[in-house]
Amino acid sequence: MGFEMAARLARGGADLTVWNRTRAKAETLTKYGARIADDLPALAACDIVFCMVSTWDDVRQVIAGPAGLLSVGAAAPRMVVECSSISLEGSAELRALLSARGIELLAAPVSGNAKVIKAGRLSFVCSGPRAAFEAALPYLRMIAPSASYVGEGELARMVKICHNVFLGVVTQSLAEITVLAQKAGVPRHAFLDFMNQSVMGSAFTRYKTPAFVNLDFKVTFTPYLLRKDLDLGLDAGRRYGVPMPLASITRDVVQTLIGRGMTDEDFAKLLVLQADASGLKLESENVEVSDGL
Amino acid sequence: MGFEMAARLARGGADLTVWNRTRAKAETLTKYGARIADDLPALAACDIVFCMVSTWDDVRQVIAGPAGLLSVGAAAPRMVVECSSISLEGSAELRALLSARGIELLAAPVSGNAKVIKAGRLSFVCSGPRAAFEAALPYLRMIAPSASYVGEGELARMVKICHNVFLGVVTQSLAEITVLAQKAGVPRHAFLDFMNQSVMGSAFTRYKTPAFVNLDFKVTFTPYLLRKDLDLGLDAGRRYGVPMPLASITRDVVQTLIGRGMTDEDFAKLLVLQADASGLKLESENVEVSDGL
Amino acid sequence: MGFEMAARLARGGADLTVWNRTRAKAETLTKYGARIADDLPALAACDIVFCMVSTWDDVRQVIAGPAGLLSVGAAAPRMVVECSSISLEGSAELRALLSARGIELLAAPVSGNAKVIKAGRLSFVCSGPRAAFEAALPYLRMIAPSASYVGEGELARMVKICHNVFLGVVTQSLAEITVLAQKAGVPRHAFLDFMNQSVMGSAFTRYKTPAFVNLDFKVTFTPYLLRKDLDLGLDAGRRYGVPMPLASITRDVVQTLIGRGMTDEDFAKLLVLQADASGLKLESENVEVSDGL
Amino acid sequence: MGFEMAARLARGGADLTVWNRTRAKAETLTKYGARIADDLPALAACDIVFCMVSTWDDVRQVIAGPAGLLSVGAAAPRMVVECSSISLEGSAELRALLSARGIELLAAPVSGNAKVIKAGRLSFVCSGPRAAFEAALPYLRMIAPSASYVGEGELARMVKICHNVFLGVVTQSLAEITVLAQKAGVPRHAFLDFMNQSVMGSAFTRYKTPAFVNLDFKVTFTPYLLRKDLDLGLDAGRRYGVPMPLASITRDVVQTLIGRGMTDEDFAKLLVLQADASGLKLESENVEVSDGL
Repeated sequence: MGFEMAARLARGGADLTVWNRTRAKAETLTKYGARIADDLPALAACDIVFCMVSTWDDVRQVIAGPAGLLSVGAAAPRMVVECSSISLEGSAELRALLSARGIELLAAPVSGNAKVIKAGRLSFVCSGPRAAFEAALPYLRMIAPSASYVGEGELARMVKICHNVFLGVVTQSLAEITVLAQKAGVPRHAFLDFMNQSVMGSAFTRYKTPAFVNLDFKVTFTPYLLRKDLDLGLDAGRRYGVPMPLASITRDVVQTLIGRGMTDEDFAKLLVLQADASGLKLESENVEVSDGL
Repeated sequence: MGFEMAARLARGGADLTVWNRTRAKAETLTKYGARIADDLPALAACDIVFCMVSTWDDVRQVIAGPAGLLSVGAAAPRMVVECSSISLEGSAELRALLSARGIELLAAPVSGNAKVIKAGRLSFVCSGPRAAFEAALPYLRMIAPSASYVGEGELARMVKICHNVFLGVVTQSLAEITVLAQKAGVPRHAFLDFMNQSVMGSAFTRYKTPAFVNLDFKVTFTPYLLRKDLDLGLDAGRRYGVPMPLASITRDVVQTLIGRGMTDEDFAKLLVLQADASGLKLESENVEVSDGL
Repeated sequence: MGFEMAARLARGGADLTVWNRTRAKAETLTKYGARIADDLPALAACDIVFCMVSTWDDVRQVIAGPAGLLSVGAAAPRMVVECSSISLEGSAELRALLSARGIELLAAPVSGNAKVIKAGRLSFVCSGPRAAFEAALPYLRMIAPSASYVGEGELARMVKICHNVFLGVVTQSLAEITVLAQKAGVPRHAFLDFMNQSVMGSAFTRYKTPAFVNLDFKVTFTPYLLRKDLDLGLDAGRRYGVPMPLASITRDVVQTLIGRGMTDEDFAKLLVLQADASGLKLESENVEVSDGL
Repeated sequence: MGFEMAARLARGGADLTVWNRTRAKAETLTKYGARIADDLPALAACDIVFCMVSTWDDVRQVIAGPAGLLSVGAAAPRMVVECSSISLEGSAELRALLSARGIELLAAPVSGNAKVIKAGRLSFVCSGPRAAFEAALPYLRMIAPSASYVGEGELARMVKICHNVFLGVVTQSLAEITVLAQKAGVPRHAFLDFMNQSVMGSAFTRYKTPAFVNLDFKVTFTPYLLRKDLDLGLDAGRRYGVPMPLASITRDVVQTLIGRGMTDEDFAKLLVLQADASGLKLESENVEVSDGL
């Protein structure tokens, strides 16, 4: 996802320096005017540093590791915009760590995947100092049409967790009604065509449609990752005293998906689990359908 | 809703004759060139008759009642496009009744409310003879940007039920995560602003936002009606052997809303029930928010 | 079950006349002093007629069919004690039908199976005229140690449905915790030995123990029958406005059991479904365990 | 509960020395031949030390605190039989701590409350070295008719958690069907009289009957404690990959009970929450009912 974000920044006219573990990946960006950094500390001279990796461990390594952003001298950017999907605890640790060096942190996880960014449909949810958000906004807008500010500290991480809980519930509900419609006689592509165009349709229901119709479960998000986010949501529910029955049941269904060994493909295999529970053997409809992107 | 549909047909250039129980309501349409029928049988001379009322009893009365469409002579339209939210059984009875007079039925329930039509965002889901659908399509398109054909017979009714089951689940899940986000410190308007712009946002989440933010629960759809559609969905699940745990739990939550007496306002009061279960006293945020229409 | 009931009546000293579709089955009872009726109308001379068959259709046939109890002349017993598991509607129809002949009906379904009766552990739940209950009580007591009176009309049928809803929930919960305990390292027989002797233990948990430990799923009650009773309970919940989330979810789990084809064996296969969802391959523990009877 | 346990040991003929924070409480036991210890270290000369307190903190204090069992010299009992309801982690820490002094630990939580012990109906579930269990068994039997051995280490704690998860589910299901039966016309005392005598009846359903019938919610176990045990069960479910939908939903219902402020009375107020969700105002039936003890 980082590549698409950087490409949009470069094309948007930002004065951009890029670093990637695999330098060759970054080099494609030079055609849009981006410079390539030889190492991470070279980025410390920038005003704003965007970070988009996989896990909190990766974030820690690129920021504070032995060869990381802060590993050489006292140079430091004004702020880090951290876009990975990490926990509240990781985010708070990062904030403390940056703060000790006088660097602001804008927590800025996203809704969408690489294809969504490319289609210009990403959205950011941001938390941290309001001034940092305002300063970063012109650059966020180069990447995505929408960036919401939700408050101080790590609140954006909390919102991302809520977003992913919703994503899990919506997918399971969609699996329930798609199988019901099919058993009643409606082809999946016809059913989802209507749902996608109805008031209930979303970018998400649209880009999951090819998977539901043609059973292409190439992984975009694994059942393990979805379970992790549902557990984070339920843990937050415990902490704040919020009962969440739909999240709870969805969590149990995702656990069942994992227990039955459907772990290597996309979490959209919830459709297959639902069909199986309904005595239905799914087959691809082999219909060309749009993903809306 | 009928008025907005007719207005769009008239403005779209259709040769339109209109009948309404309250003639005065129809008369506003004459400025767009519509004619007013003196009684329902006068519509029997039309090629296509659209019907949009409240319940199956109303449909039966306007079509086959003593003063209904078919009450005088042998004149009959080519087809009836029935857009009300009625049951599969009612729809099948209507089809038989029309078929005996050589009239085709296009079952064509909609996704959206009057405001959605006005905003040009309605969608139809249609079932019946494919040729009838093709013939009606130019007129459906005057009303709505989207009309999906899902198959023969009453399948469109089934799809509408699935749509409303999904609507119930989505609303309850949204209530769960909105209360969680608020208890964690995120204002509802900021939270929903992000959700609406995220890949999970839909026309529905957008037009429910004012209710969730400012606690305006003027009724658009009552808890009783939502319970009825959830029950229809669960009954279909029984008939077709499809377990639907999220629909089941949502049904029980809506029943709790009714049991606790929150029956006169919009079903969006699921938010209030959720807050109450979470020990949270909701207050309006008094923030101007868009409904996206 | 009828045989065991009759045997206990005969041994208890009742003046007993017996009829069974298969006369040979009834004849074993002559050694306890029972007489064999040549046909059903011969029982019309008795004071109290007990009826224990399978379905409401069977009940109707033996009472009011062409060769049934009431098929010859005006002779009629004082009362019928109807012990089969039939619906409220069937029970009400039977009451009307008997009432027209001046016969009282005591609705008297039971908790337990043939083995439970034999062990002297059956219980009746009765509804109808209180005087009829009082008159029947000495005979009920010959069969079972316990007979509860719950009110007029068909209330006993309602109570039996509640009993079976509870049975479904208890079995599913037992499946959940038995699999959890096993995965944590506790053999099923050791776990259930404790549960059975704990304050949570019941005759039911004890007599299901051999099935859970040694995976003997010879049918006592099919998944279809359990689903039927859960549906009756949920329908009553709809009628009386009672949300029942645990019953709803259990119903969906039983539907999944059926959807996955585990229909020919006992509903205790809920344990297998639970193990499967938990990534556990069950094997018989081959341990001799008591069923408590 | 400790008093009743000690009383049964003394009456059973054990050579008993007793210590209690409030010495006066212990003194009543001298009439059965028990000796009173001046302080905890005095118990270190005993062969077997039973411990029954409230929390893991209390256990740690009486065993390893500055004035605890092990605070003076090298004297040590052969084994500690620990009967409190503590976590797996606490139990493991205790085992390590005792092991370092050459003392065996028998983890021995119980099913039942003080009244159950007095009625001679307690049951132990034990884990630890099998030999320790065998040696303790004669004494366990003086206290309770039943003691089950489930394996090494802290397995008995796991089993106790499963037991309490089941207790939560059973109570919620009982609340659902009791309210349904009442709304259908069956008094609660009549309904529960049957249930208690049916194959589904347990010591637990019997001793909760007075609370359900006469709405006496004097606390025996708080909603907070039940929630804690349900959370421990669900956490174990996560660790071992066991989806537990009924436990999950029950957990959410108990959270709702807490969220709505019903926290100071017994968890049996789940009945009140269920009635409230069903639009029913409960009143005491003022009927004398047995608790079965």
